Amino acid sequence: MNANVAIRSEQKLQDLGGGVNRRVLAYNKDLMTVEVIFEKGAEGSTHTHPHTQCTYVLCGKFEYSVEDETVVLGAGDSIVVPPNLPHGTVCLEAGTLIDTFTPMRDDFINE
Amino acid sequence: MNANVAIRSEQKLQDLGGGVNRRVLAYNKDLMTVEVIFEKGAEGSTHTHPHTQCTYVLCGKFEYSVEDETVVLGAGDSIVVPPNLPHGTVCLEAGTLIDTFTPMRDDFINE
Repeated sequence: MNANVAIRSEQKLQDLGGGVNRRVLAYNKDLMTVEVIFEKGAEGSTHTHPHTQCTYVLCGKFEYSVEDETVVLGAGDSIVVPPNLPHGTVCLEAGTLIDTFTPMRDDFINE
Repeated sequence: MNANVAIRSEQKLQDLGGGVNRRVLAYNKDLMTVEVIFEKGAEGSTHTHPHTQCTYVLCGKFEYSVEDETVVLGAGDSIVVPPNLPHGTVCLEAGTLIDTFTPMRDDFINE
């Protein structure tokens, strides 16, 4: 098939430490979708990258910060973060984020 | 905030007919996330567009076709479709797809 399929049960779960696990899902060079699973209280510490990112909250509740502003997001809520803006999250209720990046994150594949 | 937030409950649901409803979620010019809700048996008829697309299955079961090949996707499964490739879906069990496009779909905003 001239498309890239990811069956979830076949994708490797990576333990990032601190109560955060990541599973890379379908991707090509232009787009990558990633599942990130948080325990309550776990953090995605503030960071930047040159990719545009959309975060979709699959379940749980998250305090999401971009630069010096914060919003609380729950299931079904979403946010698009432009390139190179500092952003991070604190998990208020255990849950999962679906992060999509353009272009793909080479660093997630080569770790 | 220098990021685009979409609180799901505030986003308009569009009835596309044929048992398909769409809710545009967060987007900027480079990335757009869209929720598409299907009744059982509803179809996303085969079409093309110049955007790269990732489809993530939130729930339900879908027969997904790209050109002349087909795969069945369930909750958590995903697929990335390159630009201009004919693709479509038939909903086997009622459910929801999270579609992400790069660049954004102007046509979804201007309808």
